[in-house]
Amino acid sequence: MIKTILLKNRPEGKPTLSDFEFVTEETELKINEGDILLETAYVSVDPYLRGRMSAAKSYIPSFELNKPIQSGVIAKVIESKNKNFKEGDFVSGMLSWKTKQVSTGEGLLKVDGSKASLSAYLGVLGMTGLTAYLGLNQIGKPVAGETLVVSGAAGAVGSIVGQIGKILGLTVIGIAGTDEKIEVLKSQFGFDAGINYNTSKDIKADIAKAAPQGVDIYFDNVGGPISDAVLFNINRFARIIVCGAISVYNDTELPTSISVQPFLVKNSALMQGFIVSNYAEKFPEAMQHLADWLAENKLTYTETVVDGFDHIPHAFIDLFEGKNNGKMIVKI
Amino acid sequence: MIKTILLKNRPEGKPTLSDFEFVTEETELKINEGDILLETAYVSVDPYLRGRMSAAKSYIPSFELNKPIQSGVIAKVIESKNKNFKEGDFVSGMLSWKTKQVSTGEGLLKVDGSKASLSAYLGVLGMTGLTAYLGLNQIGKPVAGETLVVSGAAGAVGSIVGQIGKILGLTVIGIAGTDEKIEVLKSQFGFDAGINYNTSKDIKADIAKAAPQGVDIYFDNVGGPISDAVLFNINRFARIIVCGAISVYNDTELPTSISVQPFLVKNSALMQGFIVSNYAEKFPEAMQHLADWLAENKLTYTETVVDGFDHIPHAFIDLFEGKNNGKMIVKI
Repeated sequence: MIKTILLKNRPEGKPTLSDFEFVTEETELKINEGDILLETAYVSVDPYLRGRMSAAKSYIPSFELNKPIQSGVIAKVIESKNKNFKEGDFVSGMLSWKTKQVSTGEGLLKVDGSKASLSAYLGVLGMTGLTAYLGLNQIGKPVAGETLVVSGAAGAVGSIVGQIGKILGLTVIGIAGTDEKIEVLKSQFGFDAGINYNTSKDIKADIAKAAPQGVDIYFDNVGGPISDAVLFNINRFARIIVCGAISVYNDTELPTSISVQPFLVKNSALMQGFIVSNYAEKFPEAMQHLADWLAENKLTYTETVVDGFDHIPHAFIDLFEGKNNGKMIVKI
Repeated sequence: MIKTILLKNRPEGKPTLSDFEFVTEETELKINEGDILLETAYVSVDPYLRGRMSAAKSYIPSFELNKPIQSGVIAKVIESKNKNFKEGDFVSGMLSWKTKQVSTGEGLLKVDGSKASLSAYLGVLGMTGLTAYLGLNQIGKPVAGETLVVSGAAGAVGSIVGQIGKILGLTVIGIAGTDEKIEVLKSQFGFDAGINYNTSKDIKADIAKAAPQGVDIYFDNVGGPISDAVLFNINRFARIIVCGAISVYNDTELPTSISVQPFLVKNSALMQGFIVSNYAEKFPEAMQHLADWLAENKLTYTETVVDGFDHIPHAFIDLFEGKNNGKMIVKI
């Protein structure tokens, strides 16, 4: 029996369970020469998938209606007719939301569960960690002693960005949505300060207080009013890394903010959007640093692991409520 | 008799004549050893001066109340006790809005009226030309065949940006506020297309039509709704040069726009604010190119020359009505 999750409707605003359809097939999968048969072990759910669910033109094609959704997946090879993979191997790659599937192996990486937990390859040792490392370094160009603000700081990318910031000698301020998250940022991830945007009476003033020297680098995962508040505190030659805008992904009207242009002119500041694949040639170097830091316990991570294939859509929807601590993963 | 223009009030919204005060002194100016006595010949009025009239912290200090305003000035040396200057020399520099003044010569450049008109040193061969050249090249990194959109295209900086774009092999689209200006952009400055934002029914659609391949570089002089419309048309890896935001300089409330973050992420696009002095080490190279192109008639410029010292404040205010074609200069 194979279960598959299809995109049934393009979400209007916040995704709902009715945007997804479960299909169960009773067929057995057969593989041809060169193929491998995969059994899904872990599925990554990520805010950027929201963009692929809409029809708007973007850097990666939209998901097609009534076709399986894809995301980062760790799967086990349960049958192989491909010399590069053997039964029992685990692989990581962009795969469908299916309990089992056939692949040619193209685009898949073998991952080693003895070096790190398998799910880490969806997080700190996967696209999440690469996004944090490469965004901060390639665009942020951090210099020890500078001040870094991270929004969505308790999220998968944000919590790694902050830790890398500390490793590189920055003062790191995180913005997140609950006191519990702020506590985790400080006690577990070593952030210097945290701001709870849900209880702050004046985010702009709280940032100014936490960053008395001003903000040199802003790693922006959220957009919206939080990012507006950071803008008032940027220094000359500030770098704003625009990684995501989760706060507005579900907006049905075009979101508005304060005009950034006067802040950019006044401060000779930079804002740069990116996706991690822009820096593919830097992946090996980045991965090496991340793996080393992880082995040295300089880097730690949290996961919110949801159990069961049937809960993938729900886990995805929960991202927009900030219900995750760190990387949101579904264990099959 | 010496006339001086002081900043009397910090403008609220659009500057008015009552924000300026004229003072007339009957004294004769005496100069000490090392000084030069200057008689003002041309005064540059520029949108960025609006920023210096407010009290807000910026990249250059605010003008002080009841002190002379300063801007780019061409002046004639009428007496010299400084070996670097002789009577009859013309100099360019940041000087006060005074008919005569004493200087040590520090920060002043001698300019040669036989090579180009004196006023050109306030425009195409001055900060204006350098801003256009360095913003376009250092941030825009143009590649022949790409599409460039310029807002404020009939202004001093914009009209030079567009011409440099053509010299570098770009398709150039200008946005300006009257049909006459659009005609000048095309016939005099060689722009490929022009959009009149005052008569366009849908600026976003008109840009799409003029730039069927999308927009690779946007040289933004205006901010506001025009820049919002450009955002919808940017290509992957687009570069947005944020030079000015004249459309919002006089806003008394914090201006709002559509949120840029989703556009930047989706397109891995860059927005970079700058002031020309960031690239001071590139001035000689830039100046050489500008002077060569001017001599070869590859570059042309327009000036709106207003006559008489007493009209400086009025000329400045007219900038915000778009009454200038090209560089706005007051001839004394």
